[in-house]
Amino acid sequence: MSVVSINLFVALLCACMVIGRLLEENRWMNDSITALLIGLCTGVIILLTTKGKSSHLLVFSEELFFIYLLPPIIFNAGFQVKKKQFFRNFMTIILFGAVGTLISFTIISLGAIGIIKKMDIGDLETGDYLAIGAIFSATDSVCTLQVLSQDETPLLYSLVFGEGVVNDATSIVLFKAIQNFDAEHVDVVTVLKFVANFFYLFFTSTFLGAFAGLFSAYLIKKLYFGRHSTDREVALMILMAYLSYMLAELLDLSGILTVFFCGIVMSHYTWHNVTESSRVTTRHAFATLSFIAEIFLFLYVGMDALDIEKWKVASNRIGKRSQYAISEVSIHDCIGSVHLFIFHPYDMKCYFSPGKSVGVSSIVLCMVLIGRAGFVFPLSFLSNLSKKSPNEKITFKQQVVIWWAGLMRGAVSIALAYNKFARTGHTILRGNAIMITSTITIVLFSTVVFGLMTKPLIRFLLPPSAKHLSRDLSMSSDPPSPKSFLSPLLGNGQGSEVETAQNVSRPTSLRMLLTAPTRSVHHYWRKFDDAVMRPVFGGRGFVPFIPGSPIERSVHALQ
Amino acid sequence: MSVVSINLFVALLCACMVIGRLLEENRWMNDSITALLIGLCTGVIILLTTKGKSSHLLVFSEELFFIYLLPPIIFNAGFQVKKKQFFRNFMTIILFGAVGTLISFTIISLGAIGIIKKMDIGDLETGDYLAIGAIFSATDSVCTLQVLSQDETPLLYSLVFGEGVVNDATSIVLFKAIQNFDAEHVDVVTVLKFVANFFYLFFTSTFLGAFAGLFSAYLIKKLYFGRHSTDREVALMILMAYLSYMLAELLDLSGILTVFFCGIVMSHYTWHNVTESSRVTTRHAFATLSFIAEIFLFLYVGMDALDIEKWKVASNRIGKRSQYAISEVSIHDCIGSVHLFIFHPYDMKCYFSPGKSVGVSSIVLCMVLIGRAGFVFPLSFLSNLSKKSPNEKITFKQQVVIWWAGLMRGAVSIALAYNKFARTGHTILRGNAIMITSTITIVLFSTVVFGLMTKPLIRFLLPPSAKHLSRDLSMSSDPPSPKSFLSPLLGNGQGSEVETAQNVSRPTSLRMLLTAPTRSVHHYWRKFDDAVMRPVFGGRGFVPFIPGSPIERSVHALQ
Repeated sequence: MSVVSINLFVALLCACMVIGRLLEENRWMNDSITALLIGLCTGVIILLTTKGKSSHLLVFSEELFFIYLLPPIIFNAGFQVKKKQFFRNFMTIILFGAVGTLISFTIISLGAIGIIKKMDIGDLETGDYLAIGAIFSATDSVCTLQVLSQDETPLLYSLVFGEGVVNDATSIVLFKAIQNFDAEHVDVVTVLKFVANFFYLFFTSTFLGAFAGLFSAYLIKKLYFGRHSTDREVALMILMAYLSYMLAELLDLSGILTVFFCGIVMSHYTWHNVTESSRVTTRHAFATLSFIAEIFLFLYVGMDALDIEKWKVASNRIGKRSQYAISEVSIHDCIGSVHLFIFHPYDMKCYFSPGKSVGVSSIVLCMVLIGRAGFVFPLSFLSNLSKKSPNEKITFKQQVVIWWAGLMRGAVSIALAYNKFARTGHTILRGNAIMITSTITIVLFSTVVFGLMTKPLIRFLLPPSAKHLSRDLSMSSDPPSPKSFLSPLLGNGQGSEVETAQNVSRPTSLRMLLTAPTRSVHHYWRKFDDAVMRPVFGGRGFVPFIPGSPIERSVHALQ
Repeated sequence: MSVVSINLFVALLCACMVIGRLLEENRWMNDSITALLIGLCTGVIILLTTKGKSSHLLVFSEELFFIYLLPPIIFNAGFQVKKKQFFRNFMTIILFGAVGTLISFTIISLGAIGIIKKMDIGDLETGDYLAIGAIFSATDSVCTLQVLSQDETPLLYSLVFGEGVVNDATSIVLFKAIQNFDAEHVDVVTVLKFVANFFYLFFTSTFLGAFAGLFSAYLIKKLYFGRHSTDREVALMILMAYLSYMLAELLDLSGILTVFFCGIVMSHYTWHNVTESSRVTTRHAFATLSFIAEIFLFLYVGMDALDIEKWKVASNRIGKRSQYAISEVSIHDCIGSVHLFIFHPYDMKCYFSPGKSVGVSSIVLCMVLIGRAGFVFPLSFLSNLSKKSPNEKITFKQQVVIWWAGLMRGAVSIALAYNKFARTGHTILRGNAIMITSTITIVLFSTVVFGLMTKPLIRFLLPPSAKHLSRDLSMSSDPPSPKSFLSPLLGNGQGSEVETAQNVSRPTSLRMLLTAPTRSVHHYWRKFDDAVMRPVFGGRGFVPFIPGSPIERSVHALQ
């Protein structure tokens, strides 16, 4: 990035923030759409000033996305999530995130093979169609989360949000698995290998994140406790979290899952071991970093949409040629921006056909709509079967919101699409270019059009007054007072632990295991946490908070 | 940077923090030296594992330094500086920073022309020797500031620190001016042009920084006040500060001066317009960013010192060859790392002479010692003449500390040296390589050897008990209570404004202007600030602090 483009970007980020603030009251807009539209407008201006020649300055770079922008967003998500709510709905979240993504992937892949294959867009293999399935299974929940409120609709928020994270991880793992998957020779062994690989990635990534979080908690408790070294504490937390992400990428695991669980563990243990200033600082600094990264991302996608090179190639028929100079690189070491100079059209014949991109985009969008409907409603039905209280069931209106909230496709899709179609190296074909432009079209359309309709849709389906009366009584007050939680479902993980324990101990253990397994697991986890984990790693109530005293050892004193 | 090197760097940063914390009690070490030594050790390990072949992974990049690492350090310096102390000693600081740097530059340049020119190290022109003067006039006060305490020795801290910032700006401005300076034809016009250019850069940079700070204050006061948008407020402050730096670089001004004054203005106005959480967050988040950047920097310099390529070239005699492919780039647009592949030795004859680098280094080090002594003691004498109270004068022991504190040469020197000698493009000569290796030797030696001796020296010259009794009574309590300041000199800019105003109004205006011009300026500035600036831009006492109320207009209410 040159000084000029950094200036441009930072100025645009400031503009996004100011304009986003001015449009805050608007019922349609949110920060993501504002940033995307500002990015688009800037792209148009750049195209006009350079007379349609240059837009290379703003080419999408996987490095920027996966190394710098994604980690703060996902880490902050884990750090700020209301853990009780998340783990309470853990089974449903896993059901939606993992099984749902697999269903969505299957439907989109089959649709792609069934329809797009017949459209004559170039030499795409079966593996490519499976990749399309994985690429467009990755939802972008960032946009929706700006509309849903963690305090007003905790169940919906934790479902949509948790699903989003598991979904990102699942689609990336799927995408990785497909690259090593021989699509032409499917048998039981390859499928089993695929499943085993999936679970291996899932659990090792989670373990690495939890380990990094616990290590940071232990280190800060031993080294800094009571020393007022706020800056060092915050620095160490940031660096450890980032290290966990990068280590996961290095080890070919899912960095997203790792850094997400690192954030959860850090907010559960490490956060309680630091000074009061560090607590305020980390909570807001991580949120700020995440906020800047999100705005940057949408601005970036908006600007990149107008990269004229891609559209030229997509509308032209380029003869088959081999170019082995650029070797295939898997996603974790895709360092260096994906410059599109590999598209130099030295064998180009002009058969102008911009309609192909639009056609492919529409078909994939339909598949996305069907694919998501194909798992949200059945899985919600399944999930409702296991809940006994009608209060805990997902109503049909909420199911519609969950369905809608996951329709947006975002930066993960773009990054995966670039990885698959812009750097394969061996066949730079029109099919690939069409897939790139279609991806951008889908991302823009779904974010802007679906995104614009999300706020009104949620207001229509779940009007604030009704919501507030039915399930979210007294949830809007932010510093939670433990006495005000009427139902354990509404506990927000900060103050209602005593009451939850009472509620949990009422039914018999056997019935609990059958009807609400997560709650029982949660109960035993809390026992283990209090007896083993917190005395070692610190945490709420297990680190004495005595400002000014240089105590290093943690004493079992309650605040 | 690949994933591997990012992992390595982040892990090393964590290690630096932990080891730095463990060595905190040690009387010799500080964080900078720890980081430098860890960097050196890592460099050795990398050299051994790659069998001396590759160290390209860790080549010093001007982009990284000037675009990412320097801005947070300097901004935080401005943001955290005790403004009253800084402006009270403004004249002395300018004297030391600007005039002192010019004296130091003259002495080092003359020494270089007198001695190094006769050493047969290659084709260096007069302009190159002047550049050497500018390069080695840039002190590195980061290391010293970790030893000096703002609370314990406010006068010394503000002098050393303020001088460091003005010095950095002066040397960069000097360096820029020399690049356009025809050293062979010196007349009155070129010297006057040079002086005019210097003042132009100085004032426009300051103005840009102040403008950015005021604009952020106004924007946040109008848009966010009373809205609890902590994350947006913090994000906007970070982005505006960074934008001011990048704009200055874009306009060919001194980004360091700009972002420094932006920090001062932001802490004076903007900081008072934000929520309580934002205040805590900004204070610690900026300090944390600066801390990470500093540690990163020293780690980086430590690792880069072992880049074997440079040493090879420096010890070999390369025949003169012309290479016009790489054009000369001035510092503000030096984007992209300075890879040393331009040193490909295709006309190399081996005359091994590592002694040359050591010789040049020793001579320059002597010049640095003399050059700094040549302005600290005379200028201190001058400064003392204008002070009437013996309490305000700089004692001889303090002068020695000031002299010593500015002997370290750091990243600015390295960046300037690379800019001058590694990318000139037209003559890649042995002389250039020797200058690069000499610069690294000087930086390493001065930081480690001089740096190690700083802590004991300060303890020896200014023992804590004597210090505390003589000048720094009751300065160690951090949240300042206005009643405890005995002398106006000791005011730390947070709470003693009323008393200062009383002290200032005692002598007649004329006498004040003659004996202590800065104090008088300060007095009128405060009047202007209260009457005009604070009502518009907010600030302490001019923004009502009513948590929870959505008041947008500022009312003239005291806290």
